[in-house]
Amino acid sequence: MDSFNRLEEIFRKFPGIGPRQAKRFVYHLLTQTDIDIDDFANHLKNIKSQTVLCESCCRFYTIKAGVDKNLNTICNICSDQNRDNSLLMVVSKDIDLLTIEKSKAFNGLYFVLGGNIPILEDFPQDKIRQKELVKKVNLLSQSNTLKEIIIATSINPEGEHTAMYISNILRPLITTSGKNIQNIKITTLGRGLSSGSELEYSDGDTLKSALENRKVAR
Amino acid sequence: MDSFNRLEEIFRKFPGIGPRQAKRFVYHLLTQTDIDIDDFANHLKNIKSQTVLCESCCRFYTIKAGVDKNLNTICNICSDQNRDNSLLMVVSKDIDLLTIEKSKAFNGLYFVLGGNIPILEDFPQDKIRQKELVKKVNLLSQSNTLKEIIIATSINPEGEHTAMYISNILRPLITTSGKNIQNIKITTLGRGLSSGSELEYSDGDTLKSALENRKVAR
Amino acid sequence: MDSFNRLEEIFRKFPGIGPRQAKRFVYHLLTQTDIDIDDFANHLKNIKSQTVLCESCCRFYTIKAGVDKNLNTICNICSDQNRDNSLLMVVSKDIDLLTIEKSKAFNGLYFVLGGNIPILEDFPQDKIRQKELVKKVNLLSQSNTLKEIIIATSINPEGEHTAMYISNILRPLITTSGKNIQNIKITTLGRGLSSGSELEYSDGDTLKSALENRKVAR
Amino acid sequence: MDSFNRLEEIFRKFPGIGPRQAKRFVYHLLTQTDIDIDDFANHLKNIKSQTVLCESCCRFYTIKAGVDKNLNTICNICSDQNRDNSLLMVVSKDIDLLTIEKSKAFNGLYFVLGGNIPILEDFPQDKIRQKELVKKVNLLSQSNTLKEIIIATSINPEGEHTAMYISNILRPLITTSGKNIQNIKITTLGRGLSSGSELEYSDGDTLKSALENRKVAR
Repeated sequence: MDSFNRLEEIFRKFPGIGPRQAKRFVYHLLTQTDIDIDDFANHLKNIKSQTVLCESCCRFYTIKAGVDKNLNTICNICSDQNRDNSLLMVVSKDIDLLTIEKSKAFNGLYFVLGGNIPILEDFPQDKIRQKELVKKVNLLSQSNTLKEIIIATSINPEGEHTAMYISNILRPLITTSGKNIQNIKITTLGRGLSSGSELEYSDGDTLKSALENRKVAR
Repeated sequence: MDSFNRLEEIFRKFPGIGPRQAKRFVYHLLTQTDIDIDDFANHLKNIKSQTVLCESCCRFYTIKAGVDKNLNTICNICSDQNRDNSLLMVVSKDIDLLTIEKSKAFNGLYFVLGGNIPILEDFPQDKIRQKELVKKVNLLSQSNTLKEIIIATSINPEGEHTAMYISNILRPLITTSGKNIQNIKITTLGRGLSSGSELEYSDGDTLKSALENRKVAR
Repeated sequence: MDSFNRLEEIFRKFPGIGPRQAKRFVYHLLTQTDIDIDDFANHLKNIKSQTVLCESCCRFYTIKAGVDKNLNTICNICSDQNRDNSLLMVVSKDIDLLTIEKSKAFNGLYFVLGGNIPILEDFPQDKIRQKELVKKVNLLSQSNTLKEIIIATSINPEGEHTAMYISNILRPLITTSGKNIQNIKITTLGRGLSSGSELEYSDGDTLKSALENRKVAR
Repeated sequence: MDSFNRLEEIFRKFPGIGPRQAKRFVYHLLTQTDIDIDDFANHLKNIKSQTVLCESCCRFYTIKAGVDKNLNTICNICSDQNRDNSLLMVVSKDIDLLTIEKSKAFNGLYFVLGGNIPILEDFPQDKIRQKELVKKVNLLSQSNTLKEIIIATSINPEGEHTAMYISNILRPLITTSGKNIQNIKITTLGRGLSSGSELEYSDGDTLKSALENRKVAR
């Protein structure tokens, strides 16, 4: 297959990209200089060697130039001594983690599932990093520092299904003979009015939480 | 002006209706039976006599057939002895009140502002029922029952601007010589993830509140 | 039922109006003056007596004040001697006719079907004014003036289905023993690029017609 | 800059891609195998050497493997003896040409402008391949075969502005001392109802053309 058609095929597999936009991307490349294209290809070739999946939280991070990839397997968040290791937040995707980091609202540890579990999925364990999560939680609970696992998935059917699946997986891990000896909590993010919410269109669950969580006006 | 054009004009003033849909409404009427049209006209003539603006909360409510409109000036919510009169929720519109009632999340009293205050509005006091609100709060605070005023506006620029304006109006009312002797709180609804919220697209304020208000997973 | 709920029900049957907007309409009425409401109700009561379904083209039109409805049964377009009676345009709705009149692109006669025929409809003859159309075409073809019937339905599945149904109904009417003696044509509107069309997104049929119908550039 | 950030920057410049989707693209790459990434990079490196801007019509086309790029400067459409060289269609983008080829509605020659001219553009000649178009038209008109130049731009302000600009540039080329001796026409694509058009929402120009171009019903 020629490179035009092959690149079109590759772009079609990009998230959210249909056949027409894939073609448009290839035409866009054709208007770039040879130098730009070479630069693109070189960074492509480098990205996997520069980026590592953190052994501890399963997020992708960039290692510094010159550092041996095999010696650097824990990301800067996981190895940061100032993070609060009593809190573990479980998110679906790397981008969710970045959004939360940007908000500066959280200073604990993370675990990235790598996806969500579709409703009616026959093999849920294949859709997320389940084994790695179990290993991580076991490790943390053995160290006696963990106090709370925050399941931070989106508030839509897939996200809520994933949250329920995860909490069912995790609950036995933090219980010994039916008792939660270490008193580790499993929580979900609070609901309420989010930016842009109009009262008129808000559902009962959201309104109930918004009322429970009301705040003194500034 | 003939009735076709006049009705088109009237429908154009309906909320959210453009010229084309106004015309479509008139054609819709033409396909109705005479009995249907008469029924429509009669209920129109009756609506104002059957519906009263509650003197206490400023919401519209329907009075029972045969009841004298001038004797019935307080709505069923305001006159319900089982409602919690320590809580007053201030909403923008009647429909907001209905949405909250439907959620069964709130059992206090209401006040309907009748609108929001646009940002940069020169005469904010003309956009809402400010005098009536002030009167209501003074009355409630004199009766020593009021504990909290919940400002429940939408989370958009206009709603937040209205909330700030209202709280600035109300704060002096509940303070005597700079002190909030009765300890009446002014609050706003809690923020957090609402139905449909995706973590990736959530803003910092929403995420912070969602973290603060997290709940034990079911 | 009280007038509030009844009006909400009536507005819910308006074209394109959901339950929430129906409620919003009733609240809008409550903010109107008594004079405005009376004016609305009176025009409602008058609309049917002032508006007549033209016996000839089946469109609704307003008769002049003081004119007896029973004596005025032909609309101003049908009775206009300057209209070209060799052309009959068949449209789905009154609003389509108004849109074409506004464009000043057509000076012939009209017939309003009063709707479209849904695909897979069991009783197509009940969805449009079929009998009246047949009568109108028979009348026009007897007068030997009719040269062309233009079926002007929308370019979507329902519109195209209606066009095909109509042309199958009309074809026998203009044929005597298999021959179209009077040479009356049945046509449909031309296809091509319409305002806002982008070449990239145009389908083959549209492009073919656009090429066939190309015009000398101004 | 590391490859993660550099690739994010490169994707941001792709047509229609915002910062968030650019990031999502990089994470997508990280989930690909090394073999897939190498394949992507190799095809990137090859695309410019395999793809040539046709000297005659200015479209991009792929040359066959093993063919010397410098010897193959005319695309398969331009060198096809079966194409009708009396017709030249001027399009804005490569994708427009592909859409028309797919429709099989046209068998003439093409010229790709490489863009449109924004309204109020100070340097219109820099936004399209104007010099190349002039050269192409001069060449074709000298060969005495050209009968018609079809300007096939989109029906939106930019497309129509480009069409007018082009026709003003081309008109002098086909005229000798004010006369169009060779009788070359400059045309635009026909307007009419396109797929999805509803009569009610059609503008006057579209309706006029739809009426002029009406067709005998099937």
